Amino acid sequence: MLTTLKRMLIGRPLKTTELGDQKLNKTKALAILSSDALSSVAYGPEQILLVLVTVSTLAFWYSLPIGIGVLLLLTALILSYRQIIFAYPHGGGAYVVSKQNLGKYPGLIAGSSLLVDYILTVAVSVSAGTDAITSAFPSLHAYTVPIAILFVVLITLLNLRGVTESASILAYPVYLFVLALFILIGAGIYNALTGNVPPAHHAQIGTPVMGIGLFILLKAFASGSSALTGVEAISNAIPNFKSPAPKNAAKTLSMMGILLALLFSGIVFMAYYYGVSPMTEATVVSQIAEETFGRGAMYYFVQGTTALILILAANTGYSAFPLLAVNLAKDKFIPRMFTIRGDRLGYSNGIIMLAVFSILLILMFQGQTEQLIPLYAVGVFIPFTLSQTGMMVKWLREKPEGWGGKLAINTVGAVISFVVTMMFFLTKFNQVWPVLLFLPAIILLFHRINKHYLAVGEQLSLSTAEPTVPIKGNVIIVPVAGITHVVEQSLNYAQSLSADQIIAVYIPFEREEEAAFQEKWSKWQPDVRLVTLHSQYRSVIQPLMKFIDVVERKARESDYQVSVIIPQFIPKKGWHNVLHNQTSFYIRARLLYRKDVIVTTVPYHLKK
Amino acid sequence: MLTTLKRMLIGRPLKTTELGDQKLNKTKALAILSSDALSSVAYGPEQILLVLVTVSTLAFWYSLPIGIGVLLLLTALILSYRQIIFAYPHGGGAYVVSKQNLGKYPGLIAGSSLLVDYILTVAVSVSAGTDAITSAFPSLHAYTVPIAILFVVLITLLNLRGVTESASILAYPVYLFVLALFILIGAGIYNALTGNVPPAHHAQIGTPVMGIGLFILLKAFASGSSALTGVEAISNAIPNFKSPAPKNAAKTLSMMGILLALLFSGIVFMAYYYGVSPMTEATVVSQIAEETFGRGAMYYFVQGTTALILILAANTGYSAFPLLAVNLAKDKFIPRMFTIRGDRLGYSNGIIMLAVFSILLILMFQGQTEQLIPLYAVGVFIPFTLSQTGMMVKWLREKPEGWGGKLAINTVGAVISFVVTMMFFLTKFNQVWPVLLFLPAIILLFHRINKHYLAVGEQLSLSTAEPTVPIKGNVIIVPVAGITHVVEQSLNYAQSLSADQIIAVYIPFEREEEAAFQEKWSKWQPDVRLVTLHSQYRSVIQPLMKFIDVVERKARESDYQVSVIIPQFIPKKGWHNVLHNQTSFYIRARLLYRKDVIVTTVPYHLKK
Repeated sequence: MLTTLKRMLIGRPLKTTELGDQKLNKTKALAILSSDALSSVAYGPEQILLVLVTVSTLAFWYSLPIGIGVLLLLTALILSYRQIIFAYPHGGGAYVVSKQNLGKYPGLIAGSSLLVDYILTVAVSVSAGTDAITSAFPSLHAYTVPIAILFVVLITLLNLRGVTESASILAYPVYLFVLALFILIGAGIYNALTGNVPPAHHAQIGTPVMGIGLFILLKAFASGSSALTGVEAISNAIPNFKSPAPKNAAKTLSMMGILLALLFSGIVFMAYYYGVSPMTEATVVSQIAEETFGRGAMYYFVQGTTALILILAANTGYSAFPLLAVNLAKDKFIPRMFTIRGDRLGYSNGIIMLAVFSILLILMFQGQTEQLIPLYAVGVFIPFTLSQTGMMVKWLREKPEGWGGKLAINTVGAVISFVVTMMFFLTKFNQVWPVLLFLPAIILLFHRINKHYLAVGEQLSLSTAEPTVPIKGNVIIVPVAGITHVVEQSLNYAQSLSADQIIAVYIPFEREEEAAFQEKWSKWQPDVRLVTLHSQYRSVIQPLMKFIDVVERKARESDYQVSVIIPQFIPKKGWHNVLHNQTSFYIRARLLYRKDVIVTTVPYHLKK
Repeated sequence: MLTTLKRMLIGRPLKTTELGDQKLNKTKALAILSSDALSSVAYGPEQILLVLVTVSTLAFWYSLPIGIGVLLLLTALILSYRQIIFAYPHGGGAYVVSKQNLGKYPGLIAGSSLLVDYILTVAVSVSAGTDAITSAFPSLHAYTVPIAILFVVLITLLNLRGVTESASILAYPVYLFVLALFILIGAGIYNALTGNVPPAHHAQIGTPVMGIGLFILLKAFASGSSALTGVEAISNAIPNFKSPAPKNAAKTLSMMGILLALLFSGIVFMAYYYGVSPMTEATVVSQIAEETFGRGAMYYFVQGTTALILILAANTGYSAFPLLAVNLAKDKFIPRMFTIRGDRLGYSNGIIMLAVFSILLILMFQGQTEQLIPLYAVGVFIPFTLSQTGMMVKWLREKPEGWGGKLAINTVGAVISFVVTMMFFLTKFNQVWPVLLFLPAIILLFHRINKHYLAVGEQLSLSTAEPTVPIKGNVIIVPVAGITHVVEQSLNYAQSLSADQIIAVYIPFEREEEAAFQEKWSKWQPDVRLVTLHSQYRSVIQPLMKFIDVVERKARESDYQVSVIIPQFIPKKGWHNVLHNQTSFYIRARLLYRKDVIVTTVPYHLKK
């Protein structure tokens, strides 16, 4: 029944050879990998104005040069990540670049910040999208958390169905959002050029404003840079592209850069032209749309596609997180299960883990995740800085043809990313401090996991493990609970093996039972030695363990192997299990975990 | 660590031979087995007045004849249960009596109503006691539910420590309560005799009252009879008495009857003499105490011991429930685990189950369990009626010496109990109807459990099971995941058994791995046949299951037994398990539940 439900939700399992069909073309890749970056256009420009308004609305003209700064950073990042895509065509992005060029720990810092960041991406963007919906339909407000969780579950199911299928569905809203913003910006520019709407009456560009200093400007710049989160996703997800993967990924990245630049500058310009001031009741984009179209169909089109893309931004996390996890798991820093492809060839454990953690975050913050945005931004700029620095080291070390230009690009990117990271710490320390706690904690955990895997490998490898002692003979112990068919079957099996000794063990709780059982036994199985162990504390396990210890110590002297054969009947229906004391189960678990004996279960399947 | 905590809470384990020390003398038995019955004095008389007041305060004098009716019923019940104790000295009370004399289903009706009733006893009495405490300290009111649960947990721990220890502690409050009420009644009678307090000015005995009919009187009688719940507990708990158990139990029962009769008639009389009217703010006992002593130390002594005994009434449930469960489990109507004595020789599974269910009830009703009182009373009178009827049948069938008198006693008891039961259904149907749903449901469940146990017994018994086919040879399958030390160990073991065939199975996900592994294998283990099964859906279990099916079909033709030997490494620390895909665990579970093969685990304990 569970299998049927699974089939219904995620479809039939796919063969490994069908992997090629699960690769993305550029159009679909652009849609699902850039939804995060593009969606940040909806709040990036607003973040700049929110800082400037603390000084004066006169300072709004500074949004233009700050916007140009953000565009410069965007250009540096896009160029730099193009270089990363070609240099590391198997994906892994900031984690692989930092690890290979700067060392294990910088790599882990980049990897774990991104891992956490994708979780934050999902939680923050789904919450933001849900907020947009509940603002439109206030009666849904009480259900914010369940609605957000429902969206996470839906996106998770789509991703479990496979990358291609989710891309086919999710491409529409992404392109509709781009279309909506282009119409909005186009109409806005038309209005401006024809003079239909006059510019707002506020300070001209270049007007000096009291109280504006370098600190405020840098803070506004850092806030605006939050529009650049998601830019790195493509570099993590190269393996999802149709071949030639690196080339297609690079083209998609450039396309995303261009779209992002156009939309971002368009919104910054329109906001300045209309003199939009950030308000709690309406977003900057909403104000621009209202100013341009009035509250008509186009206004609702812009608002609707914006809400949708905020939710779909989560999907970028779903594309990048599992692939980053594969890279970390291959390097033995996180559990191996993340390298396993699910029925639909996606890395389903990564997908499910991402869903679980983001739902936990949504529950913990009751859907109020806005306070997590700075944390989320700083979590992106740390790997940005590290990966660009890594690339600098690479060029300096390898000095390929034309390395000077490449070095210059990455140096600019590294410096700006570093400055933005520092600005977050300086200006929003009370929101970003948790990163200083959880990054070290995660890295410590990764380190311990790594140590364990290396130790296991060493212990299992034939070249390093202690040589196996050959088995010279076998002693078999059969715990028996009575004279039944199940016990008979187990004894038959024990006798069919060429064991040197078979010992049946009976553990009575009452002294009186002891003699009676021994007598019955000697009539029934005269050839099998029976040991009775009176248990005065009514525990089966303790006397059995002690007995096995004694037998084992003696057996080891002559390199004999001790096996315990447990008779177990298997009820026909699951609920029947509660009707039976699961003694054989406990015995088996205790033996396997505590003793060096081999444990055999002889099942007897009940027919009714 | 868990073991240490357990030792601290419930003490060291006891030997089975120490069982004798866990028996109760009469003083202690009276305390813990009659707390339920005695505590009902605190609300029984009030229940009568609550019915009469619906007509008029003039009708209060009827409480005297009704009280005499209740005393008559009490006498009949006590005499009747004395007869049950001697006739069924191994305990089991109404369940055993009804089953043996009336048949399986009447027995199950009696047994399951009592089982549910003891759960209700715990929930209702702990909630009532907690209410008394939170009324005294209103600041605790918000914590009613956690406080009630805490009391349940405390009483459970006491009972897990053992009957004697709980009796030693719980005897004090019970006797203090009896002392407090005797002082109260004594002082009251002294006041009445000396004329210190004149009788209330209300209707004289015998005054005709408008609106009083048989229905109201019977309703008041039924309500007053709720003071008799708990009378049957001793007959269930005979095995807990020091020997001679039946004699001691019968004496304790008589003592309890006398105490109950004195306290009940004292309270009824005082209430009438003082003209007490039931009020929501103060209980009848509280009003009598205030009238007698004023709000002094003695008043608080009465109130405090009353609150305490209400909570301790729960303990009667703890004494009787596990013993009733043992009887039902021995007859295979409920899971066998209820017959197991815990570390402290109590039937700990019964104790824990009682705690779990009563905590669930407290949570469900948020501590407002008063509405459950009628349900609880009817749940006692059904088994009362059945057991008395059973005794009638017994006397008529066996006709022992002096059976006429015995029959008369039980007939009176049966008739009154039946009338009271009917009165509950007629007058409080909207509160007692659930009994008509859950009794059949529970009995159906018991019936199905019984059917399962009988079927299992038949299938396991040597006389009825199909004869075992002798094993003519062994085929061993070893699933291997690579060329490691663990696999080597499993192969060594397989080779040490005299198997006719050993097949190693490797399941690669990629075609390319197949040939490479086969080559490595033939160099490493040239003597062991290797089968590779390419899994195009990346599942280890499915191809393995199919392969085992094929091997098994062939083996069965020549009565060969198929065993699967699973190499499994056991990590040193528990948390390490999440780092490894528990493939061997899944394989084992699937094999045991689905296939007729023997499953052997060869553990390899990691040292770091």
